[in-house]
Amino acid sequence: MGQTLTEKILDDHLVEGELTPGEEIGIEIDQVLTQDTTGTLVWLQFEALGLEEVQTELAAQYCDHQTYQFDFKNTDDHRFLRSAAGTFGAHFSRPGNGICHNVHKENFAAPGKTMLGSDSHTPTPGGLGELAIGSGGLDVAVAMGGGAYYIDMPEVVNVRLEGELPEWATAKDVILELLRRLSVKGGVGKVLEYTGPGVESLTVPERTTITNMGTELGATTSIFPTDENTEDYLSRLGRDEEYVELQPDDDAEYADEIVVDLSDLEPLIAQPSMPDNVVPVEEVEGVDVEQVMIGSCTNGAYEDILPSAKMLEGRNVDKKTEMIVAPGSKQASEMLAREGWTAEMMAAGVNFSEATCGACIGIGHVPASDSVSLRTFNRNFEGRSGIEDDSVYLCSPEVATAAALKGEIVDPRNLADELGDLDAPGIELPDEYIGNSESDLIAPDEAVDDELIKGPNIGDVPLKDPLGPDIEGEALLKMEDNITTDHIIPATADILKFRSNIDKLSDFTLSRVDDTFAQRAKDNDGGVLVAGENYGQGSSREHAALCPMYLGIDAVLAQSFARIHKANLFNFGIVPLEIDADTYEQIEQGDDIEIVTDVADAIQSGETEFTIRVNDDWEASATLDASDRERRFLASGGKLTHTKQQYEDDSGAAPADD
Amino acid sequence: MGQTLTEKILDDHLVEGELTPGEEIGIEIDQVLTQDTTGTLVWLQFEALGLEEVQTELAAQYCDHQTYQFDFKNTDDHRFLRSAAGTFGAHFSRPGNGICHNVHKENFAAPGKTMLGSDSHTPTPGGLGELAIGSGGLDVAVAMGGGAYYIDMPEVVNVRLEGELPEWATAKDVILELLRRLSVKGGVGKVLEYTGPGVESLTVPERTTITNMGTELGATTSIFPTDENTEDYLSRLGRDEEYVELQPDDDAEYADEIVVDLSDLEPLIAQPSMPDNVVPVEEVEGVDVEQVMIGSCTNGAYEDILPSAKMLEGRNVDKKTEMIVAPGSKQASEMLAREGWTAEMMAAGVNFSEATCGACIGIGHVPASDSVSLRTFNRNFEGRSGIEDDSVYLCSPEVATAAALKGEIVDPRNLADELGDLDAPGIELPDEYIGNSESDLIAPDEAVDDELIKGPNIGDVPLKDPLGPDIEGEALLKMEDNITTDHIIPATADILKFRSNIDKLSDFTLSRVDDTFAQRAKDNDGGVLVAGENYGQGSSREHAALCPMYLGIDAVLAQSFARIHKANLFNFGIVPLEIDADTYEQIEQGDDIEIVTDVADAIQSGETEFTIRVNDDWEASATLDASDRERRFLASGGKLTHTKQQYEDDSGAAPADD
Repeated sequence: MGQTLTEKILDDHLVEGELTPGEEIGIEIDQVLTQDTTGTLVWLQFEALGLEEVQTELAAQYCDHQTYQFDFKNTDDHRFLRSAAGTFGAHFSRPGNGICHNVHKENFAAPGKTMLGSDSHTPTPGGLGELAIGSGGLDVAVAMGGGAYYIDMPEVVNVRLEGELPEWATAKDVILELLRRLSVKGGVGKVLEYTGPGVESLTVPERTTITNMGTELGATTSIFPTDENTEDYLSRLGRDEEYVELQPDDDAEYADEIVVDLSDLEPLIAQPSMPDNVVPVEEVEGVDVEQVMIGSCTNGAYEDILPSAKMLEGRNVDKKTEMIVAPGSKQASEMLAREGWTAEMMAAGVNFSEATCGACIGIGHVPASDSVSLRTFNRNFEGRSGIEDDSVYLCSPEVATAAALKGEIVDPRNLADELGDLDAPGIELPDEYIGNSESDLIAPDEAVDDELIKGPNIGDVPLKDPLGPDIEGEALLKMEDNITTDHIIPATADILKFRSNIDKLSDFTLSRVDDTFAQRAKDNDGGVLVAGENYGQGSSREHAALCPMYLGIDAVLAQSFARIHKANLFNFGIVPLEIDADTYEQIEQGDDIEIVTDVADAIQSGETEFTIRVNDDWEASATLDASDRERRFLASGGKLTHTKQQYEDDSGAAPADD
Repeated sequence: MGQTLTEKILDDHLVEGELTPGEEIGIEIDQVLTQDTTGTLVWLQFEALGLEEVQTELAAQYCDHQTYQFDFKNTDDHRFLRSAAGTFGAHFSRPGNGICHNVHKENFAAPGKTMLGSDSHTPTPGGLGELAIGSGGLDVAVAMGGGAYYIDMPEVVNVRLEGELPEWATAKDVILELLRRLSVKGGVGKVLEYTGPGVESLTVPERTTITNMGTELGATTSIFPTDENTEDYLSRLGRDEEYVELQPDDDAEYADEIVVDLSDLEPLIAQPSMPDNVVPVEEVEGVDVEQVMIGSCTNGAYEDILPSAKMLEGRNVDKKTEMIVAPGSKQASEMLAREGWTAEMMAAGVNFSEATCGACIGIGHVPASDSVSLRTFNRNFEGRSGIEDDSVYLCSPEVATAAALKGEIVDPRNLADELGDLDAPGIELPDEYIGNSESDLIAPDEAVDDELIKGPNIGDVPLKDPLGPDIEGEALLKMEDNITTDHIIPATADILKFRSNIDKLSDFTLSRVDDTFAQRAKDNDGGVLVAGENYGQGSSREHAALCPMYLGIDAVLAQSFARIHKANLFNFGIVPLEIDADTYEQIEQGDDIEIVTDVADAIQSGETEFTIRVNDDWEASATLDASDRERRFLASGGKLTHTKQQYEDDSGAAPADD
């Protein structure tokens, strides 16, 4: 039986398991990527592992989320990250040099490689045939230490592209069309593999727009085959020697097939406040627009901004509409400046920003109250722009620019008819991409630091002791259903700046549920948490497990757990036990909870049923659903401690399994 | 007797008083300028006056301080300012279009005019022979309504320039030299008028660097005569018809004379943390520099950034030094981009920002802890950069760029010797300045709004009732000596965003002294304040009087008052009474204070001695030192109420006196 492209790359990197959907596999990681809000913890964990050097072919640390540096803590984080990259052997990209996905694409993304990154849009290089997956920071740290990455083998879905995009339709409309059809849950547990005759009509930058925003489908990753376009793109980057031809076998079998005829597409737009709330632009024409933003890892490349510049040349942005361009990389900025496009855009009324994630995560250029913002970004979740009840639409640079010119949403085809002299800009690649300044992207062998520089806000990463025989403590907090990771550790800017300072960050643990919780946990020297259904839904942030661990939480008793958060609880040595509705009802906050039996022994021996004793008065049953790997993490006190122990046992060699 | 240039312009605009130093004069104002953190209150006050249209020749509203728009309240403020400018007839400059002083210089500054601006660096256009003075927002609002501006006639000091600047010395070194000699208090109560043969060797942009930073001397304003250079500069701006020749009379008499031989100057630097802590750069060579910033209203012009770009061309910024360029105006950005300099700077490793005040006021690019930042700005007060215990040095763009190249402080003359091929860039003006986009600088007759747009954070400006016969209340707070306006209303970003919302802002009143104060004032329906010496020192922010007034404070009993704050107390209808040390000692917080006699009557009749009765038990004397104008303000309930009443009495005509 033939293989899909995904299977081929996984097969090449397989260190454990078989490529059967749903089964756990371990794969070798070639490249890792981290950014500034997740990277500090990654390096603190790497340091805690006691390793001296990055073991992957390549690691790259980018500074892109907090580039405005509103607080010295941001600037200290960047300095720490530079020192960590230098000390341990990673490339370092300075604040202002661009968004991780863009700079990585320009400099390092290569066909056939595997990559792990501590950012959800890590799949971007799938447009060049790299298999790139987003994960929690601890998995990245372990991968940098040479450890395999474990994941349940996803289903591979064939997205067959036919035809060619008509004028004014773009790659953004391809992914918006998929979101319209599949919804934001449509890709969960799947790799989307693009095939078919339509692929060759798309340049690599167009492909990476699609793979980048595949994250919004919930997909594990997205990938394109490689071809002449890939080789041509790498050649323009001066990296043609990295080209590898990669295609699925003709008789590859896919779990499902979705056909998209590119020639049927038209300008689309995602309405507030979900990326899958997609309609043709024409349906929402006439809505007043106060802000237009071009940029982000989805549409912040040279090839994304150039069409906007061509549309703006000799024209003026509407006086009621602020237009901000935040390029995805300084390379894009520099090329646009060198060719005169930056000046043209400024002359049209554009506010040209430094290269940053910025507004996409609600940092800067927050929309005015009760106003509409059109953005070329990938997410428009309510409140993400920095103001509650926002109205953010997602669209292509062409649609965004048309709105900036008219001051209201307009199908660019209709605006072209109205203006008479507005041509569809199409897509154009530069003959040659310029390189980064050696000060902006510092190679490991040119590093300026050989020791870590930690400002006063940068703490050590805490480690948990191996699990003992007893778990007993107070039920410190009893929570409802659907507690999110935002409840557990909020991500607002005033709290985000403590991401490198677990001691301080943990003070905010569950503060949105009960702001006395952290102090009570400290006063009680820890305890257990009780929750209803779906505990820990939301983001993958590992701080939502690390901070409770730091406060001494040994176990969470919940009716059910969200998948990623449950994995994080294992990673940080907290025992996730499922209880039934009756037990949940009976337990009250403040009760004394004891797990009867030798907990460490039972977990290591594969026990699934545990007895909990409440107030030394009544008993109930609780269930542990965990793999052997996860049981070993719990026994060791978490994945970090476990991996550290393995390194010490193996004298620093890469661990054989996890 | 001949006149100084200052006297000539004042004479031309005099509506009341005589030009005798120390005597109060009233002058007509031709132009006004406001920015975003002071402008919202200016327009709310203008609205409260009940006027329909700006009465000055020109008014311009800029958005420059909060251009990153971290909070929707900033964006709402900008939208409100656009609507106010449109509704009342002012020019509106969008966020990203640049710093008020730079954009004003490029577009509106003109010889012989008077200007009032609600920003302390308003004197910048003095470099073109405009007499420009910074003031509180209420004075600006009244001036926009056609009212005169009242000020004690300053002394005029002759700063006689001789010789020409040698290579690597710049206009920044002229003002640093004056700060070195005179200190930050050396200009208080004075106008610095530049004369002598050295004037003609300085271009207008160099002159405005000097007049801009004259503010750091404490000067009322600074001014240059006009000459061929002025005419030439205006001509390159396309505004040569606005040229007027202005010179002091040959026999003009000055209060003092200071001689600066330009040919003696060398590269200077202000060490942390005061602008007058000036030494030759050579004395501090070798200090490691982690951050270099070029920009601000002092050195953010095209002519300031171009020398830096020339020095960076073909070189790389040190890998340990982050270099950020934040141009003073988009005009500067666009010209640098159009000529290829922006791309060159990016290639050297510069992070090129949008045009903003930003970092100069601690908003963005806060230095790392325990690190040195070299900035071309005008102030390095401790903590102003956004981190306490900062180490900020002030210098020219040439000195800053040399440090960025070497990674440490270096005299650029020595760096030039070391590199061998680094030429002194000198100063170069463009043949022609480009214009602003009509979307970025919206003229009153092209306004897009004809009514005010107020977001939920924008409240009305409160008005006080006319003074009644009785003042009695609790001594709500007893304070020490030297309470600053930062104590009264802090200016950190989390509080700054409420500048348009007095109801909310007043909750922070005196919170740095006692965080229960605002609530207690509300619970008690107001009361009086008691303080030691020098109450209200620091900035001119009128919120420090407005918020206590809003909370019902009727009087402040203090041993002495800072000059500007005392004026603000009059403006907002709070009676400032001086008490002696014994009385201060005897009064305790919580005491009941009553002013014996009919207060309104006594104030209007010119009474200076008042009797206060404490706890209905003992009495003491208190003194009111106030002009007739100030007494009328108190009687009316403040300058705003007073002026509003005048307009109503005069059916909207400009008031005859104040």
